[in-house]
Amino acid sequence: MMQRSVFFLSDRTGITAETLGHSLLTQFDGIEWKKHYASFLDSAAKAQAVIEQINTIAEQEGQPALVFSTLLDPVMLASIRRADCVLFDFFETCLGTLEAVLQQPPARIPGRSHVLRQDASYFRRIAAIQYALNSDDGANAKILADADVIVVGVSRTGKTPVCVYLALQYGVLAANYPFTPEDMGAIQLPPLLQPLRKKLFGLTLNTSRLQSIREERYPGSHYASFAECQRELQWQNELYRQFDIPSINTTDVSIEEISASIVNRAHLERRQHGT
Amino acid sequence: MMQRSVFFLSDRTGITAETLGHSLLTQFDGIEWKKHYASFLDSAAKAQAVIEQINTIAEQEGQPALVFSTLLDPVMLASIRRADCVLFDFFETCLGTLEAVLQQPPARIPGRSHVLRQDASYFRRIAAIQYALNSDDGANAKILADADVIVVGVSRTGKTPVCVYLALQYGVLAANYPFTPEDMGAIQLPPLLQPLRKKLFGLTLNTSRLQSIREERYPGSHYASFAECQRELQWQNELYRQFDIPSINTTDVSIEEISASIVNRAHLERRQHGT
Repeated sequence: MMQRSVFFLSDRTGITAETLGHSLLTQFDGIEWKKHYASFLDSAAKAQAVIEQINTIAEQEGQPALVFSTLLDPVMLASIRRADCVLFDFFETCLGTLEAVLQQPPARIPGRSHVLRQDASYFRRIAAIQYALNSDDGANAKILADADVIVVGVSRTGKTPVCVYLALQYGVLAANYPFTPEDMGAIQLPPLLQPLRKKLFGLTLNTSRLQSIREERYPGSHYASFAECQRELQWQNELYRQFDIPSINTTDVSIEEISASIVNRAHLERRQHGT
Repeated sequence: MMQRSVFFLSDRTGITAETLGHSLLTQFDGIEWKKHYASFLDSAAKAQAVIEQINTIAEQEGQPALVFSTLLDPVMLASIRRADCVLFDFFETCLGTLEAVLQQPPARIPGRSHVLRQDASYFRRIAAIQYALNSDDGANAKILADADVIVVGVSRTGKTPVCVYLALQYGVLAANYPFTPEDMGAIQLPPLLQPLRKKLFGLTLNTSRLQSIREERYPGSHYASFAECQRELQWQNELYRQFDIPSINTTDVSIEEISASIVNRAHLERRQHGT
């Protein structure tokens, strides 16, 4: 397979450079990316060390490295530009355009995107993480009443990581209610959820996938049998249908995508990024 | 304060457009951003609805809206370009350059960056989230032994959100060990941590900040008193010094930045983005 070296450069965390760079790379198939991360590049000496690494690798590989950058320092950026690389400068170009449109110079202060602002949205996000942990699989009426959304589903449909992601990325208070076999008599909502019907969002999975996830946890158990998985999913999906609970089949969908879908479809208010 | 409307457009989750767009906006002070999110734009009808919204807002405000986009569909992008907006097209420009450098056309399949790949790194990330929850404040030797890093600190230094973020963003197995008053006799490592010294990373806080966080939780308690906070922090920081435990003062630092610093300084292996 073709190989290509990629550098992610940043004055601070590197999260922005990595997110966009990674998105771009996924559009090119059949290439093995050799990834190098250089965050917190805050001195000329550190920049020089990275430049030497870029040049060494380019020479070894006989081709320029790809460099994704959110560096803000024009001097540092200019020195990177002289290295043996193809530079994708995510900030500088856009900042120039924004400066012209807004008729105001950018602050050029690194790390502002992930700086701690002593503002309400940041602390709400922290509180949301704590909320997701407190409400994890320990449903109680008092906690559930505070939820922005209650993610429901039978055991092992992936509720926990989705709730945690909703908290971290969007500052949403996401509680988690696992349907248990005790809930599964008639097709009716568990008593705790009845007053909260409008807040419910369902996860579901294909039977064979649920079986394999449960099998990994409790091999050979009744809980992990195909018949039991099928029975629980049938009950659950019929509940979603009868009570008009929006739901998403997570079999081939990542937690990022499930979470973004929930925010989008349930019209959840975002508490993020200083909003 | 000056106001300006901003749209974040995406074929899928919108996470990439929001991350980069937000980073850029933080560089301009004194403007109140009115943010509009349009993710999962996967039909001409949805695109048309957004275009109408962009034009209406531009007319109301008497100035073009800012639009940050990771749309991949050239037709949709062209129609957005004709709206009354300043378009920041994060993908198209870079994809063109990448295509030339790699001598290969991009796949142009939306949502690849957050698609579920049935690969090891994705499941390790899910497992890491579960691990962070399982190990949260419930230290036991068996769990700690598996950790890539053990985040330590006295109560309320912010260990939990950092461990969860390390799991979600980097797929790192991050355990969490809270120092309790029982640990604080002589300056020595708690027995559980003694064999794991190399894995420790310490958090600390300014005394007055710790006091205010604890005060919020247990107002008027001994636990939240300035003297107790000071005593615990002094013990903790002396421990960090004597045992050469790397540490970070989190008083003015966000969880993203703390986490990125830990990955960087502890040279943790990333299990993310298909790496």
